Amino acid sequence: MPGAANPFTPFPPRPHLEGDYAREELALAYRNSALPLEALAWDVTPVGLHYTLSHFDIPRLDAASFRLAVGGRVERPLTLGLEDIRALPAHTQRVTLECAGNGRGLMSPRSASMPWLCEGVGTAEWTGTPLRNVLGLAGVAPDAVEIVFIGADRGYDRGVEHDYGRSLKPEAAMADEVLVVYAMNGAPLAPQHGYPLRLIVPGWFGMASVKWLARIDVLARPFDGQQQVVGYHYRKHSDDPGVPVTFQKVKSLMVPPGIPDWYTRRRLVDQGTVKLNGRAWSGRGVAVVKVEVAIDGVWRDAALEAQGDRYAWQGWRCDWRAEPGEHELACRATDATGATQPSTPEWNASGMGNNAIQRVQVTAR
Amino acid sequence: MPGAANPFTPFPPRPHLEGDYAREELALAYRNSALPLEALAWDVTPVGLHYTLSHFDIPRLDAASFRLAVGGRVERPLTLGLEDIRALPAHTQRVTLECAGNGRGLMSPRSASMPWLCEGVGTAEWTGTPLRNVLGLAGVAPDAVEIVFIGADRGYDRGVEHDYGRSLKPEAAMADEVLVVYAMNGAPLAPQHGYPLRLIVPGWFGMASVKWLARIDVLARPFDGQQQVVGYHYRKHSDDPGVPVTFQKVKSLMVPPGIPDWYTRRRLVDQGTVKLNGRAWSGRGVAVVKVEVAIDGVWRDAALEAQGDRYAWQGWRCDWRAEPGEHELACRATDATGATQPSTPEWNASGMGNNAIQRVQVTAR
Repeated sequence: MPGAANPFTPFPPRPHLEGDYAREELALAYRNSALPLEALAWDVTPVGLHYTLSHFDIPRLDAASFRLAVGGRVERPLTLGLEDIRALPAHTQRVTLECAGNGRGLMSPRSASMPWLCEGVGTAEWTGTPLRNVLGLAGVAPDAVEIVFIGADRGYDRGVEHDYGRSLKPEAAMADEVLVVYAMNGAPLAPQHGYPLRLIVPGWFGMASVKWLARIDVLARPFDGQQQVVGYHYRKHSDDPGVPVTFQKVKSLMVPPGIPDWYTRRRLVDQGTVKLNGRAWSGRGVAVVKVEVAIDGVWRDAALEAQGDRYAWQGWRCDWRAEPGEHELACRATDATGATQPSTPEWNASGMGNNAIQRVQVTAR
Repeated sequence: MPGAANPFTPFPPRPHLEGDYAREELALAYRNSALPLEALAWDVTPVGLHYTLSHFDIPRLDAASFRLAVGGRVERPLTLGLEDIRALPAHTQRVTLECAGNGRGLMSPRSASMPWLCEGVGTAEWTGTPLRNVLGLAGVAPDAVEIVFIGADRGYDRGVEHDYGRSLKPEAAMADEVLVVYAMNGAPLAPQHGYPLRLIVPGWFGMASVKWLARIDVLARPFDGQQQVVGYHYRKHSDDPGVPVTFQKVKSLMVPPGIPDWYTRRRLVDQGTVKLNGRAWSGRGVAVVKVEVAIDGVWRDAALEAQGDRYAWQGWRCDWRAEPGEHELACRATDATGATQPSTPEWNASGMGNNAIQRVQVTAR
């Protein structure tokens, strides 16, 4: 339960880290999947190449006995089986999800947590039913202030034992695009993506899309769960109350061109025309309106796909006449609100929301 | 081509590393998938939780235009489409694959390469046809000495550009269990597992199971490819010619019990009976005959499943009466040849074949 005494004695301190990566950070990288950047080439990321971020262990759940409980400030508390959810109107939606901590490993100093470099992103086609259909069955009481989503995964984080949980305001939860889903890319959810049922909150960073969704609690007060009030804040320093992390930020990534060196991943291309391409996205359904590519610091516009699915990434491409030698490539997106990517990370104590531009070192021969 | 001049100037040195992990190592960890240890609970590992090790970029191949070329010392050079392979007698086999470098990241000092801790393993059901059916269509010449398998992935490793390639002796290649496969766990191969076609060589470490299989060359001389003669050797030091890495070694792993702390992954259990379980396997189809579990250094026998599929891991379980406090758990397998796991890594210069026993720190409350 939240607030239970911490049994880890002594609880390991978590100072900020610099330079090389701790074994704990590496172990977290192994526990989760990441998008190898060449997989940006797929419009829809194949399962296993889509990023995952699981705070605790991946639960092994049985779809036949699985139940979603809906309770708290509702007119009719419910317990729903997977077939009850499947009986509701189905909707499939293409959504780009990104981890709020993506890029943390490139901040300096960095929070001791999942040290993403830039691979914590992916796009999938999610099938389920709008959350409001589920909430409609239960009837949300007029005094509801927050709707809480609790996963079947449990563990400790910063000294507090808890089930993973996040909340949304009722108006956000009732939005058309928020889904309770049971399928990804046309197949039942993989265990690491929330089997048998999860939430998908398009336009937000991934922490809102609670996996292994076991319980929905409607509250007449703000939710005080660890992942809501302690985790996922932009903080200037550890004691700063901070600002909650919510929507994705404008960002772009490039498929590294040519062929790699195994260990350094430096790239080798043949001189002449090199076709650069990648993806760009922003938060809350805002379209990307411009992608620029820099070759050795000189920016030019890339060709950009129009926004198709409102919550999915947009493709971009740009030809480069490569001359022999060493080069640095970069890409930068700007969205319809005018927001663009910074050239260096905007530091914060928990390493959230790093959307600094990506740089790729290339040797042309 | 092998031996081409190295265009990476300067080519980064790769000294041995100690202590924390370099950014290059972390990036390799992200590029590949790993088995979160709780996924040992599945007899057959779900796609996306099975380990992958891709040396170069994951190619994006089209099954419709895909061709496998079979040439060299054969009576009838062939070019086969996926449908030609599917028309051959189909066989499904459950196989445990492990990366030869699994455990490299726990050696000290360690080779600058993929720094696996212990997660480079998985078990899948592979469907395809015995390789000898494909070789039979082409007719291997009597003077054949090695059969080479070349993937569609290309890059640099230690200064040499090459397509990923490995060879087997004809008698090993003709063995019943060696398959050319197009499906994993009943579905077409995922891109990162070799879509549309790969080799599966049960009982060997994973480097033999060439992905994105594009070419089979039958040679009348030993294969001199980079991944055969430079990579994948047990070497006492960098100049030691060394011994080739071949079969998997006896090994066991445990599902960490209880619940984790997010960052440290230390485990918390309730006092009383804790059901420990895990998997054990060995190489070349040799059965595991004993698994022992140590609680705070005191060893006892675990209950061990008989070998079912000859090339798949065996389950084990053991009850532990946990008393409050700090504990160290460990497990150790012994196979039918009498080989058992060492308590510390058997060091070698490339960090290959580390089958030292796993240790898990647990707090009981």
